[in-house]
Formats: sequence, structure tokens, C-alpha cells
Amino acid sequence: MIVTLAGGVGAARFLAGLVDVVAPADVTAVVNVGDDFVLHGLSISPDLDTVTYTLAGEVDPDTGWGRAGETWQVMDELERYGGQTWFRLGDRDLALHLYRSQRRAEGASLSEVTAEVARAKGLGLRLLPVTDDRLATRVVVPGEGELAFQDWFVGHRHGLPVEAVRFDGAEQARPAPGVLDAITTAELVVVAPSNPVVSIAPVLAVPGVGEAVRERRHDVVAVSPIVGGKALKGPAAELLDTLGAGATAVGVAEWYAAEAGTIVIDDVDADLAPDVTAIGVRCVVADTIMRDRAAAAALARVVLEAADR
Amino acid sequence: MIVTLAGGVGAARFLAGLVDVVAPADVTAVVNVGDDFVLHGLSISPDLDTVTYTLAGEVDPDTGWGRAGETWQVMDELERYGGQTWFRLGDRDLALHLYRSQRRAEGASLSEVTAEVARAKGLGLRLLPVTDDRLATRVVVPGEGELAFQDWFVGHRHGLPVEAVRFDGAEQARPAPGVLDAITTAELVVVAPSNPVVSIAPVLAVPGVGEAVRERRHDVVAVSPIVGGKALKGPAAELLDTLGAGATAVGVAEWYAAEAGTIVIDDVDADLAPDVTAIGVRCVVADTIMRDRAAAAALARVVLEAADR
Repeated sequence: MIVTLAGGVGAARFLAGLVDVVAPADVTAVVNVGDDFVLHGLSISPDLDTVTYTLAGEVDPDTGWGRAGETWQVMDELERYGGQTWFRLGDRDLALHLYRSQRRAEGASLSEVTAEVARAKGLGLRLLPVTDDRLATRVVVPGEGELAFQDWFVGHRHGLPVEAVRFDGAEQARPAPGVLDAITTAELVVVAPSNPVVSIAPVLAVPGVGEAVRERRHDVVAVSPIVGGKALKGPAAELLDTLGAGATAVGVAEWYAAEAGTIVIDDVDADLAPDVTAIGVRCVVADTIMRDRAAAAALARVVLEAADR
Repeated sequence: MIVTLAGGVGAARFLAGLVDVVAPADVTAVVNVGDDFVLHGLSISPDLDTVTYTLAGEVDPDTGWGRAGETWQVMDELERYGGQTWFRLGDRDLALHLYRSQRRAEGASLSEVTAEVARAKGLGLRLLPVTDDRLATRVVVPGEGELAFQDWFVGHRHGLPVEAVRFDGAEQARPAPGVLDAITTAELVVVAPSNPVVSIAPVLAVPGVGEAVRERRHDVVAVSPIVGGKALKGPAAELLDTLGAGATAVGVAEWYAAEAGTIVIDDVDADLAPDVTAIGVRCVVADTIMRDRAAAAALARVVLEAADR
């Protein structure tokens, strides 16, 4: 069994590669829910949905999130009311939020709904939200105070500087059913190439989860989302610069030093390998750019081999 | 100023005719919210929406509710999850529910949202929900117990017999801002040709509203929704048979005897006029079938003249 701690786009692409090289039934993804929010009365779980759509082969290949061939009837009409259209929700995408919201109102947990959706999509792997409880990533912006994650990420296009990140509700959150067991019994725990600060940190912030991962440190392989000092997507570089040890593969290794015994860094950062090793993290150098599904599968193979060594 | 107590389709068509013969700014519709419900996390107000779409010229002419030229991307996709699709919500229609739900979550009252939507649609008349508080029509079905209105009306296609109707929350509900003042100061109060039992009764059940209407009885004109012993639409006939004084124009006159000094009944029921008069309600006989907007305008003229006499 292989557990992958997952955020959105990067994790989804990695998982798509992983299920091409190992049996999907042997894969559990533990997914960030710190980005989840309610808009228009709807419960929206961006990372779970990105992973779901990607693995179902339905994701928009250009954005990496949302649905391919999406239509926008609802948003176009909502605009006419002067409604909140800053978070663009396509028609097909909305159906999932309607389904989730209704099932939650009927008393189903987020895990249960996630399993139902995975079944409806015919996904072979197991998708688990890290928690069924409230966990809300909040971003402290100098002069602005605290913003809800999506306000900052989408509303302000992550253009405002960040002083701190906080995971509201984390202290009270309990790991969703199956999460701790999966981590504890996995042969390998992969930290996907997601944003360490706002995608993986909230997963590790759920009481018990970080501890369980750290206990498995020897079997934990992280994939650096920073390549050549830049994030492939999103604001990971800026956040690691401000809140971590810098936007480099070494900074990522330091960020995960307590959790991951091994890190996979990109070929372009090969010269940083000695610095990574120096901080006590095994370093594997490989092509980490998932330009297509074959490249994602190759990266998954690298991770599996890194774990075997 | 003319106030119309309104349910859904019949009231909407009447109002469309009314604003063709009087200045829209002189018309206030006080609309039933007993059918309102929450589904998929969305606040749905079927009667307000039917009136809105009809007056905006956007209503589906075949059904009398929902949007003309509607698309169904969201419902089609929701079906794939096994979601609740018994209440069909088109894509454009959904936009209104998203807007309303978000505004409610932001603290806006139903009246405020209704006014915003009316403004966005450029409606000239004033639309008021009868109350901003919870008011939920419940239907008692022998052997089934109490059903939420939409479960019975749409879910069971009003095919189950009804023992009683109850307006949950009515005792605590307060008239929405402007409702009592509109009724008290109106030259004319029209009871639209809506279902007396499940569309107009909940309006009258809001404390203060029924009393205000009864005080204006001399200036209240009801239009019978029963023509030739049948309802033009929906289950009014069955409900009046079981819970009222029968599914005839006389039965409607008796149902409204305390509220309406005058009733307009259809030409086909002309022979019932003496029976209506006998119970102390003035009777006007006219063509009440609103087969098109011109016919609705003609009916509105009849109502205005009935009030003048």
C-alpha cells in the first residue's frame, strides 16, 4: 500500500502517473481540505475535486483543475445578477458541489461523499480527505489582516505578501476514518509535489497525522515542487521564501526534514544534492517535470525506486 | 396602488397582464414563500422565481415556470452521481438560487435579495415575499404522515391524498417589510388565481396579513382558479374538495368569503353566480382563461372594473 499526501494539481498529476505503475487499489491519497470553502451555499473541495477529475480523465488539461469541455451557463447568468463570480465554477463542476452539499445536508461525512464520488467516477484508488472536520487555511497579509485562503489565492490571485499561514480548526480536527491506519501501515508514504506551505502543511497539521508521518520518516519520500528556484505552479516559491528556508530544493528538503527521509529533486537542481544530503535528507535527482502522463509515470517509478533503496 | 396576493404560475400570468394595464410602479405583489425549500444547499423560492421569470419575459412558456431556452448541464451531470434530480433545476435557473443562497449567507433578507433580483431583471413592479422568516407548507398524507410541500407536490406529483395542510413557522413569522403597509394603503387588493389552499392560505397565515386583508374585504377582489369544476393547473380542485367547500367557483367564494368582497368567476360558471351572491360575495362573470398576455391583460381590466363598481 502506498499513501500519497496530496494537494491539488501537482498531486493529481503525480497520482495519475502512480496508478499507471502500481495497482490503483494499492494507492491511498490523503488530500488537503484546508482550501475547502462554502460559496453560494455550496461546499467546495478544490483539491479533492482536482484529484478526482484528473484521475477520472475529466480534468481541463490547460488549467489542471476544473472540467475539460466545461460549459459556463450558470456563471454567465450569475454575472447578470451581479453575483460572486470571482471563483469560476463550470456547470459540470457545479454538479459535484451540489451533490456534495446535498449529501452533507443529509448527514453524510466528507469522506463518505468523497468515496461515493470516487465510485461514481470509477476511480480505482482510495481518496480520503485528511479530516471530516472543519479545517480552514487562513493567510495573514500585512495591512490586510487575515484572509480566507480562497480570498487570497483566487480572489487576490495570491498577489499579496504573506506574513503567516494558520490552519483554523486544526487543533480540534480529527483524522478522517482510515487516514492514520493508511499512513501507519503503508510501505511508502509519498509527499506529492504540492505546495508545502498551504497544501501539505494543513494535512500534517491535523493532530495525529504529522506525528504518524514523522514516525514513518524512513519510508517517506517527498517530491520537490520547486525546480530551479521556481514553483511549477502557484505561489510555493514566494511562500517558502517568506515562511520557509528559501525557494530552492534545499529549502523544500529543510521544510520536510522532520517528515521525509528522502527527497526527489529535479535534474536542474543536481548541484544542490550535496546541500540536501548535508541536512540529513537522502537526495534522489531525476526529471520531475510531469509534462505528460508518461512523464508522471516515470516520476512515480523514480519515487518507488527511491523508497526501495 | 394595487396589491396582488400571489402564488406561482397563475399569479405570474395575472401580474403580467396587470402591468400591461396599470403602471408597474403602482403594483406590489405579495408572494407565497411556503413552497420555499433548501436542496443541494441552495435556497429555492419557486413562487418568487416564477413571478420574476414571467415578468422578465424569461419564463418557459410551456411549463409556466423555469426559464425559456434553458440548458441542463448541471442536472445531467448530477444524475451521473446519483444525485437528487427529482426537482429539475436548469442551469440559468440555478444561477438565481446560487445568487440568493450567497446573499442570504452574507446576511441579506429574502426581501432584500428579491428586490435585488427584480432590479437586475428590470422589473417595474414591487415583489415582496410575504415574510422573511421561515414558513414551510407541510402536507399531511394518510398513512405517510407529514410531507414537506415539494416532496408531495413535485416528488409525488401531488398524487397522494391530503388530509390537512399546515404552515410550519407561521405563528412566529412576521410580515416582510412593506407587506402590511401595502395591504393597508392599497386601493385594491387582488387575490390572484392561485391555489387557495397551498399558495394563498400560507400568505394569509402570516400573523397580521390575513387580518389586514380581511379589514380591506370591501376592496378585495379574488379571481377563481377553478373553472368548470377543474383547476387550470395543479391540485387546487382536489384540495378544495377535501379541505374546502368543493372544487367549484362557489367553493372558492366560500373559501375566501372572509377576505374577498368580490370574486371573478369564469363565463362557463355563469350559472353559479346566484349561489356565490347568496353567500354574501359579489360576483363578476368574465373570461378568466389567460391563454395569452392579451387575455391576462383583459382579465386584469375586469378585476380593476370589478373593484370600481
